[in-house]
Amino acid sequence: MAKRKMILDLDTGVDDALAIAYALADPEVDLIGIVSSYGNNLLDVCAENSLKLLELLGHTDIPVFKGLPHSCTTDHFDVMQVSKDIHGDNGIGDVELPAPSRALEEQSGVDFYIEAAHKYGKDLIIIPTGPMTNLAAALKKDPEIADLIGNVTFMGGALTVEGNVTPVAEANINQDPKAADEVMKSNLPLTMVGLDVTLRTLLTKNETKQWRELGTASGKAFADITDFYIDAYYNLDIDKRGCALHDPLAVGVGIDPSFVSTISLFMKVVYEEGPYYGRTIGDNAKLNDPNPNVKVAVNVDKERYLKAFMDRLNKLFKEN
Amino acid sequence: MAKRKMILDLDTGVDDALAIAYALADPEVDLIGIVSSYGNNLLDVCAENSLKLLELLGHTDIPVFKGLPHSCTTDHFDVMQVSKDIHGDNGIGDVELPAPSRALEEQSGVDFYIEAAHKYGKDLIIIPTGPMTNLAAALKKDPEIADLIGNVTFMGGALTVEGNVTPVAEANINQDPKAADEVMKSNLPLTMVGLDVTLRTLLTKNETKQWRELGTASGKAFADITDFYIDAYYNLDIDKRGCALHDPLAVGVGIDPSFVSTISLFMKVVYEEGPYYGRTIGDNAKLNDPNPNVKVAVNVDKERYLKAFMDRLNKLFKEN
Repeated sequence: MAKRKMILDLDTGVDDALAIAYALADPEVDLIGIVSSYGNNLLDVCAENSLKLLELLGHTDIPVFKGLPHSCTTDHFDVMQVSKDIHGDNGIGDVELPAPSRALEEQSGVDFYIEAAHKYGKDLIIIPTGPMTNLAAALKKDPEIADLIGNVTFMGGALTVEGNVTPVAEANINQDPKAADEVMKSNLPLTMVGLDVTLRTLLTKNETKQWRELGTASGKAFADITDFYIDAYYNLDIDKRGCALHDPLAVGVGIDPSFVSTISLFMKVVYEEGPYYGRTIGDNAKLNDPNPNVKVAVNVDKERYLKAFMDRLNKLFKEN
Repeated sequence: MAKRKMILDLDTGVDDALAIAYALADPEVDLIGIVSSYGNNLLDVCAENSLKLLELLGHTDIPVFKGLPHSCTTDHFDVMQVSKDIHGDNGIGDVELPAPSRALEEQSGVDFYIEAAHKYGKDLIIIPTGPMTNLAAALKKDPEIADLIGNVTFMGGALTVEGNVTPVAEANINQDPKAADEVMKSNLPLTMVGLDVTLRTLLTKNETKQWRELGTASGKAFADITDFYIDAYYNLDIDKRGCALHDPLAVGVGIDPSFVSTISLFMKVVYEEGPYYGRTIGDNAKLNDPNPNVKVAVNVDKERYLKAFMDRLNKLFKEN
């Protein structure tokens, strides 16, 4: 079977780093590019982190594109302190990696989306794990792509559980709820991998220890990066048992939807200022319409996912 | 097979009236009593409505008990104007029914709950379709009943869709969110039949016309009562296509859970004052705990349910 074409849209970030590793390691996927976003850090920092990590993992063949630097409703983006607390000042757990030998692509991330949608159509899977700004901009520039793309599986939102920024808002969606609303209300076939499921997939130092013991540069670096994140989860009392595999779970589900159980809904995102800002919720006005376009993950086979995650990452880190 | 024992806890109400009819008409159920609540109208009005409707339907054998007159956090209850707009000033679509020939029971609704739980145990299904005040009071008086009762299938809440009082609060839960939180966090096996599914089951005047054409007193009265409700849905722009079968859906699901698909969660209800007051949401703190006690209905086989509803009610109204 031909491999599926995948684009990651990342604000790299610790769990984005794990998402890159999962996508590179999965035998069914051809990672054709990474589009950069702002979020866990500034756009330029996130883009450089992706270049560094690809180089660490021996994949200088994968292009990295620059996305948009701030939300569609602002003219500026500042990194939140809590993002630095969770991901480190440099976004990757304050682990120093060599400066990348490559540059970013000249083509914009938005244009790369549009080109890839026309080229690969239903074979294309897009995995946004940060704000939806780039994808919404691509939809606005070329609305036709909504009917071309095979699937968009995004990490973001919270439907059946509370948010992590406010009681209703999850961090990625909260960065640009208007863009997220536009994506939700498009014809794109969407799968939402939100806090409903990602808070159930916990990684501990028992696992990162396995990577470190491989004795490779990537194994050691990824163990250090992830341990920073696990420590942050502990110190900030997010979860004392381990860190959530937010972004890599979206990659896994994009490839193999059977990791999760889903419910189908038309969704909307609240972007009016106020207490419900950033809320991802079913669209009551469309509750009786046929063929909802969003599959919302509400449960996950966490044992099977964690095994797949570790199998892939152990193999990848062993080789680099 | 022995019939299941059912208690309805109603703030009668148009859709509560339909819930009584469904419970009386279902061949698998033995309706052993109705506990009254406040909500769609004052406690006394709701209790009298239940007596009147039972008499109309030829069931003066079923006792009606008085529950508590206001929420556990207030000392008073006033009917909201919107309740009168939807259910009529008298709660049953401003249809005048004869004064009941019977009185309410001497025993309190709370004590009836406790007695029935000890007597029938797992054979007992409780269907609250108003505030949770009575059930929470019974749990407080005799906590043991949480482990005795077979199932509580309640109409209330909204998990995957917006509320009908605020963007997060559904009307029944909004009356007494603290009581609802106590019930949710008990060991009771719960099924939540919220707006997620009840807004998908719509009844129209095509159906009420069938009742009227039966030429019986009950057929005519129920058609008039329900038409008031359908008109209110239209005039208040709640739904132009028909009225939601909120309360009778909970009865149907209590008897035959296969009408809905559910997800299992530990739930909580927000009762702190503020914008999230009355929200029913998954309890993030227990997301990785085993054996969640709440099954939340997230989809409904509406065609099959509507057929069952009409089969039962047509048969019942034909006889009375």
